[in-house]
Amino acid sequence: MENKDKLASTRHSLAHLLAAAVLEIYPDTKNTIGPAVDNGFYYDFEFSKPISDTDLEKIEKKMREILPTWKGFDHREVSADEAKKTFADNPYKIELIEEIEKKGEKITFYTSGNFTDLCRGGHAEAEDMKKAGWKLSRVAGAYWRGDEKNKMLTRIYGLAFANPEDLSAYEKQMEEAEKRDHKKIGKEMGLFVFSELVGSGLPLWTPKGTIIRELLNDYVWELRKAKGYQKVCIPHITKKELYETSGHWEKYAEDLFKIHTREDHLYAMKPMNCPHHTQIFDSAQRSYRDMPQRYAETTMVYRDEQSGELSGLSRVLSITQDDAHVFCRENQIEEEALAIWDIIETFYKTFGFELTVRFSRHDPAQREKYLGSDEVWAKAEGALESLMKQRGVTWIDGLGEASFYGPKIDFIARDAIGRVLQVATIQLDFNQPKNFGLVCINEKGEKEQVVMIHAAIMGSIERFMSTLIEHTAGVFPLWLAPVQVKVIPIGENEEAYAKEFTELLKKNDIRAEIDLGNDSFGKKIRNAKTEKIPYFAVIGKKEVEANAVTLEGRGGSLGAMPKEEILKKLLEEIKTKA
Amino acid sequence: MENKDKLASTRHSLAHLLAAAVLEIYPDTKNTIGPAVDNGFYYDFEFSKPISDTDLEKIEKKMREILPTWKGFDHREVSADEAKKTFADNPYKIELIEEIEKKGEKITFYTSGNFTDLCRGGHAEAEDMKKAGWKLSRVAGAYWRGDEKNKMLTRIYGLAFANPEDLSAYEKQMEEAEKRDHKKIGKEMGLFVFSELVGSGLPLWTPKGTIIRELLNDYVWELRKAKGYQKVCIPHITKKELYETSGHWEKYAEDLFKIHTREDHLYAMKPMNCPHHTQIFDSAQRSYRDMPQRYAETTMVYRDEQSGELSGLSRVLSITQDDAHVFCRENQIEEEALAIWDIIETFYKTFGFELTVRFSRHDPAQREKYLGSDEVWAKAEGALESLMKQRGVTWIDGLGEASFYGPKIDFIARDAIGRVLQVATIQLDFNQPKNFGLVCINEKGEKEQVVMIHAAIMGSIERFMSTLIEHTAGVFPLWLAPVQVKVIPIGENEEAYAKEFTELLKKNDIRAEIDLGNDSFGKKIRNAKTEKIPYFAVIGKKEVEANAVTLEGRGGSLGAMPKEEILKKLLEEIKTKA
Repeated sequence: MENKDKLASTRHSLAHLLAAAVLEIYPDTKNTIGPAVDNGFYYDFEFSKPISDTDLEKIEKKMREILPTWKGFDHREVSADEAKKTFADNPYKIELIEEIEKKGEKITFYTSGNFTDLCRGGHAEAEDMKKAGWKLSRVAGAYWRGDEKNKMLTRIYGLAFANPEDLSAYEKQMEEAEKRDHKKIGKEMGLFVFSELVGSGLPLWTPKGTIIRELLNDYVWELRKAKGYQKVCIPHITKKELYETSGHWEKYAEDLFKIHTREDHLYAMKPMNCPHHTQIFDSAQRSYRDMPQRYAETTMVYRDEQSGELSGLSRVLSITQDDAHVFCRENQIEEEALAIWDIIETFYKTFGFELTVRFSRHDPAQREKYLGSDEVWAKAEGALESLMKQRGVTWIDGLGEASFYGPKIDFIARDAIGRVLQVATIQLDFNQPKNFGLVCINEKGEKEQVVMIHAAIMGSIERFMSTLIEHTAGVFPLWLAPVQVKVIPIGENEEAYAKEFTELLKKNDIRAEIDLGNDSFGKKIRNAKTEKIPYFAVIGKKEVEANAVTLEGRGGSLGAMPKEEILKKLLEEIKTKA
Repeated sequence: MENKDKLASTRHSLAHLLAAAVLEIYPDTKNTIGPAVDNGFYYDFEFSKPISDTDLEKIEKKMREILPTWKGFDHREVSADEAKKTFADNPYKIELIEEIEKKGEKITFYTSGNFTDLCRGGHAEAEDMKKAGWKLSRVAGAYWRGDEKNKMLTRIYGLAFANPEDLSAYEKQMEEAEKRDHKKIGKEMGLFVFSELVGSGLPLWTPKGTIIRELLNDYVWELRKAKGYQKVCIPHITKKELYETSGHWEKYAEDLFKIHTREDHLYAMKPMNCPHHTQIFDSAQRSYRDMPQRYAETTMVYRDEQSGELSGLSRVLSITQDDAHVFCRENQIEEEALAIWDIIETFYKTFGFELTVRFSRHDPAQREKYLGSDEVWAKAEGALESLMKQRGVTWIDGLGEASFYGPKIDFIARDAIGRVLQVATIQLDFNQPKNFGLVCINEKGEKEQVVMIHAAIMGSIERFMSTLIEHTAGVFPLWLAPVQVKVIPIGENEEAYAKEFTELLKKNDIRAEIDLGNDSFGKKIRNAKTEKIPYFAVIGKKEVEANAVTLEGRGGSLGAMPKEEILKKLLEEIKTKA
């Protein structure tokens, strides 16, 4: 068993232990299901009286009492009748049993100590449970089977790792993550806001946040432009016919925001940009000489997410993708994909992210989830595999992680506090070109089907910004900081000189602000630090006399310098994205 | 009677004449209504057999036969019964009569010659009809009362002006307009396309069209940035609560694209940006020191237009507004509005448009169409009037042309062939700030309600581009041309040198293309001309030897020049937007 699977089994086994403890303390509770999840486990219960976080201590204590008595899991197959009899008082288990029966699958009970549960299996040795580092973490509400039409149950979450050291490391990481929470920092720095009238999942970007969005986007564009990309522009809606042809209507319909027009036509908001971009490619006859066509566009897509899943910038309804689609011939795939890879590497290196690679393939066991033939999938996956080999990287296998239209190379970043996040992707797509009949006229004058490469660099600006804020803890590099320099005159006599210096900076496109407020000098300095402004320029009598400015950076004072020298220094630092 | 009203009466009277002629030729036709419209008139009929454009000659001939016999219009009031008896065979007239009856209004018949029609009046002297320049222009289908659930009728259009000279001038203008039709030129130049799968009214912008969009937008931003504007960014949807507060839900609901989410919430696509922008303003406490806040954003808005009204770029479902909202104090209105006026003047002057001004006021007779109190309207309209006086302009009165939330100064441009079009606006809004409770803290520490100024410079990029394409006939100034220079080597020997020159231009951000195709030299030149490319650079043996390039502009050859000199000339022309 791989370590990952072993850990999942330990987590799942601890969920059993949790249920055992709960049923001992609250015998009239109805237990439902308890899977392993990232970082731990949970179990959903219907309690007869509400419980809260303060009850967790008692439950955890009971778990630790029971654990030494467990010697592993025994399992046995039971008939549906016996299963139903055992769980006669538990409508949730009855529902599950009836479903298993209907599918004609085996019904199994797993027992450890005095506790028996309906379960598919996948348990740890008692020894591994005892070695594990774990604790109960919180109580939350959760609908039975995630459906808001069902009853609200009580979910108890636990954290669990292979050993106490791993648990402790995770908790430290979380503590650090909490300080860096992008929702908190975003608010403090005034980068984005939410409005109850507009709705959750729909961030509104303030002037400061918009500056960062634009700078990031401009940087991606600068890298793309050098590789021959061109910008295009599409609307956010379409008739449903576009998605019937692309395959999105069949595979993706429930995630679409749908619109019934006054004339009773059915439109959808775009959840992706590829189908629209195919229509620009397909609007003219393309010769092999015109290939490849590389379309880039930063635009919002919309997905009808459940409101319970929305969180800050990490999960939103309005997603700004820095999207691009390359339409190329098969023999151009390698060059184009490698060019995208270059852009991704350059971009993420700028921010100090380490990247690893996952090869996201289709899962042949779930063939119905994907468009197109086995042959096309083999070809597309073969092309990506040879690309990764050529690049000389080792990759994580992402079985079943492909998009419904094709396989992907996913880039995984590790941030400053060690968390891993999926960021950019390169996706190969033979299926949409086929569905839309996208061709170029080759050297022989024949129609030749083209290939699409989907390539987002940031993925989405929202996701990337949440990552970047937490990676930097809001301490942005100079080129990205919404306010780059705060100019602080010490007294009224220096105001004119300070204004003049501020104007000099502004004229050179440096985002400078002057603080003429009524706060004390010390308070002004503290404010600039809270706002995480990279530099502040202090101007007192001495500076005015010397026709200079004292520059203070995040690392401390850089001393008094002539104005032009400061300007030169700042411009250089901005230009190099240091 | 003003000239404008007199012309409308002549046009309406000619519609009667049309109906008289039709009924003489096709006695079993049912005539319905026939109003004056811009440039002429129409009349809707139910014919027993279909007619077409080829029948117009016959009808027009009959009209010219009848006209000399008409001596003006007699009218008399009739009872509903008599009216219904007269039009017993005509269900359309019966419907109209019953409506008039229901409203308790007078029913009147107008007669000229042998023809009597149910009519409200508003007719010309026979003499004016005889002096007029008019002709029938075309046949079209039109639903009874514009409702697609009703029967499709046959509409006959006529052109009509005060005299034959005006008619002829209009026809010449139309002929010229047809040559400049942005739909035709846009297609020829490959600027935008439509897809049947995406739907009409939803343009897809090609790389070439997107270049122009971005350049125009960047120019507006450059002008705004100099006036202290800041960019913000909002999503394209909102919960309906935002529009209930703003007043859009009540006044604007039928134009909204509505979305029912999977959780059964009601969202709308934004038809305007102001309500979202208020939420950014309102997300923090604003001191008088922070005022004004000037938010700019170029973003698409969506309006559920009837598909029959969609046309090229002039009427679309996805409208890219170069929008801005200034939140200011009352004593800042003047300075802010004048700054916007400056931007508008500079922008339109660049393209050679002459601007005139219309003062779009609310119509007190239709008070229910507008938000807010009489007092607030008086204040807002007073402020705009004093602004126009200060600016020293004369204005056209636009009674009833205000937005539902406030009065506007509309700028009207006259294009190269004399057509007038509404372009930019400055709108003053005291009502939304009141509805949203938008305040700043003034010098006394009190809450003070702010004012919003809505200011779009292009209005929408789609509208402006359709106007600009027709104004320039696609002959864009160098700075806007999607391809600025076409480099044409005469033979294979010059290809290397031509490539090198193309790269030199590209490195200097000049949009250069090289033509290495198999066409003859003459054909390549003709292609560059068809594409309306401002310059082409011809490179033959002589040029290579002289280390020069021969530059040809739209006005003819500029002769051979050193490469660096050409570069300098082009960069200067681009920089000055000549």
